[in-house]
Amino acid sequence: MASKKIRVIAFGLGPIGSGIARVVAAREGFTIVGAVDIDPAKAGKDVGSVIGFDHPMGVPVSGDAAHVLKKKADVVIHSTGSVLTQVEPQLAAIIRARHNIVSTCEELSQPWTHGPVAKRIDALAKKFGVTVLGTGINPGFMMDTLPILLTGVCQQVSCVRVRRVVDASKRRLPLQKKIGTGLTVDEFKAKAAKKEIRHVGLTESVALVARTLNWKLDKIEETIEPVVASTSVKTEYFEVAPGFVTGVRQFGYGIQNGRRVIELDLKMCVDAGESVDEVWLEGKPEIHSVIHGVHGDLSTAAVAANSIRRVVAAPPGLATMADIPIISVA
Amino acid sequence: MASKKIRVIAFGLGPIGSGIARVVAAREGFTIVGAVDIDPAKAGKDVGSVIGFDHPMGVPVSGDAAHVLKKKADVVIHSTGSVLTQVEPQLAAIIRARHNIVSTCEELSQPWTHGPVAKRIDALAKKFGVTVLGTGINPGFMMDTLPILLTGVCQQVSCVRVRRVVDASKRRLPLQKKIGTGLTVDEFKAKAAKKEIRHVGLTESVALVARTLNWKLDKIEETIEPVVASTSVKTEYFEVAPGFVTGVRQFGYGIQNGRRVIELDLKMCVDAGESVDEVWLEGKPEIHSVIHGVHGDLSTAAVAANSIRRVVAAPPGLATMADIPIISVA
Repeated sequence: MASKKIRVIAFGLGPIGSGIARVVAAREGFTIVGAVDIDPAKAGKDVGSVIGFDHPMGVPVSGDAAHVLKKKADVVIHSTGSVLTQVEPQLAAIIRARHNIVSTCEELSQPWTHGPVAKRIDALAKKFGVTVLGTGINPGFMMDTLPILLTGVCQQVSCVRVRRVVDASKRRLPLQKKIGTGLTVDEFKAKAAKKEIRHVGLTESVALVARTLNWKLDKIEETIEPVVASTSVKTEYFEVAPGFVTGVRQFGYGIQNGRRVIELDLKMCVDAGESVDEVWLEGKPEIHSVIHGVHGDLSTAAVAANSIRRVVAAPPGLATMADIPIISVA
Repeated sequence: MASKKIRVIAFGLGPIGSGIARVVAAREGFTIVGAVDIDPAKAGKDVGSVIGFDHPMGVPVSGDAAHVLKKKADVVIHSTGSVLTQVEPQLAAIIRARHNIVSTCEELSQPWTHGPVAKRIDALAKKFGVTVLGTGINPGFMMDTLPILLTGVCQQVSCVRVRRVVDASKRRLPLQKKIGTGLTVDEFKAKAAKKEIRHVGLTESVALVARTLNWKLDKIEETIEPVVASTSVKTEYFEVAPGFVTGVRQFGYGIQNGRRVIELDLKMCVDAGESVDEVWLEGKPEIHSVIHGVHGDLSTAAVAANSIRRVVAAPPGLATMADIPIISVA
């Protein structure tokens, strides 16, 4: 198709933002027209070298967001933080510049649990005629979009259970650190109590499933505990002795009339064995789905990049993955 | 939510149409306001008794479609035939009565492969402000919507392969007959040549995958062959001796530059063992998905019923499952 290229501004070039930019830059139908990052070490460099390409792209990375946002673009890929209230000023600036947004901000994947901030972003997006979507592999796909779609083959569903096991042993250093690899159990607990160790997104996924299925929940609960090495575990970055932490296990529960009607079980550790994603639906009929091969970093970048066409075509406002047509590689 | 009930007219009360009506009638948010069937044995009877409920619903089945379509309704569930040109007059009458349509007409699931008829329906639907969707479990979900969505976690995909095995031994008699159960191989081949044995939908699923992924295909090919009993097989309706036919195996291929980039493998027979749905995506990353529990009849009714809310909310025109937001039980 000889359609016009989609013009993309990359806002945030950490590991995830760079990963998305690499996917977008490699695709014929897209062109990167601007790049923003606050890291002084990146400012002024060509975006190609920052994201690890061996050729320049002719687009410098800038620390001056306001300047870059003046460019003509169809969408901004936003990847700077997990907490919605913290990234709201960035989102607002992008919206006021009249750019659609695909963001990996975890809390944005189901913003309606976060109260007034969602309404503010939605109203602003509608005012400026743009669409805002929070997405990624998790939250955004494996523990919400996919199980929601699978309920489509059921006449009734009484319980949605999802299990995600992530082999963190081959993932990037910041991720292995983030999940507590190498800590003592006490260190882990102290960090978890301060929310320094925590995958953000289970509450969002539970809420998105419930909202889409029209289920009224009494409450959403989350738990977090360390995964502890029983034998010595070695990665590129860590050597974890028995009794030390290899990662994190979190549960998210959607509770209705005292019953767990949504159960999300997430295990991310360096001794997880093979990654796997499973869904069980109790209902008519009963469904069990097992997926192998999903890769956290590659697939988060893929999901964000693959959402762009849908977001550009969507009506203005704050959208979730349950509000846009199915994404696909394209 | 105290939202208004969705008013449904059932158009066609064969096994699938009745199955959808049962799902809809059992749900709080829906109400059946009219029912059409050409079978004189059903005319005048209460729709409740026709679909197998033990209580009347106060809605008579009528052979007079024009009369029933005058009722106020939000959607018509249409389930009368597989061939688009044959059902076009029915669809046109429903559209002119300004009702949205969810149809199980297999060819409607990807109507754009069927040339001018799709354009006519699309234009008419836009003129009268209604949405028309063809869907079902297959085509409509397992061999198109699901693999399309799964590509969303991939940065690149070079080949989509889907395998669907349907245990027909517990399915209804017309289905067991339709797949050739009990025939000799020669009888099967004669019927297949006359297209009397044929699952309709593989070409549609290949086309929907290709269209959504923006893949230009050189051609779509389908093959059909009998599954032959190696030992004696017994169902509620048939006793199949070795050497006789237990069902059908069909392949659908999407071919690009001489390469099969889409491969659909469908096996429906009374000695299939457990039903299973698998997807393999060659790409980055490689994905393998296995789903157990999907039930052809229950799940086709579910998919159609679960599409209603999306169709009612969608913009006017002819839509595919790749054009509306993900369906879900609701």
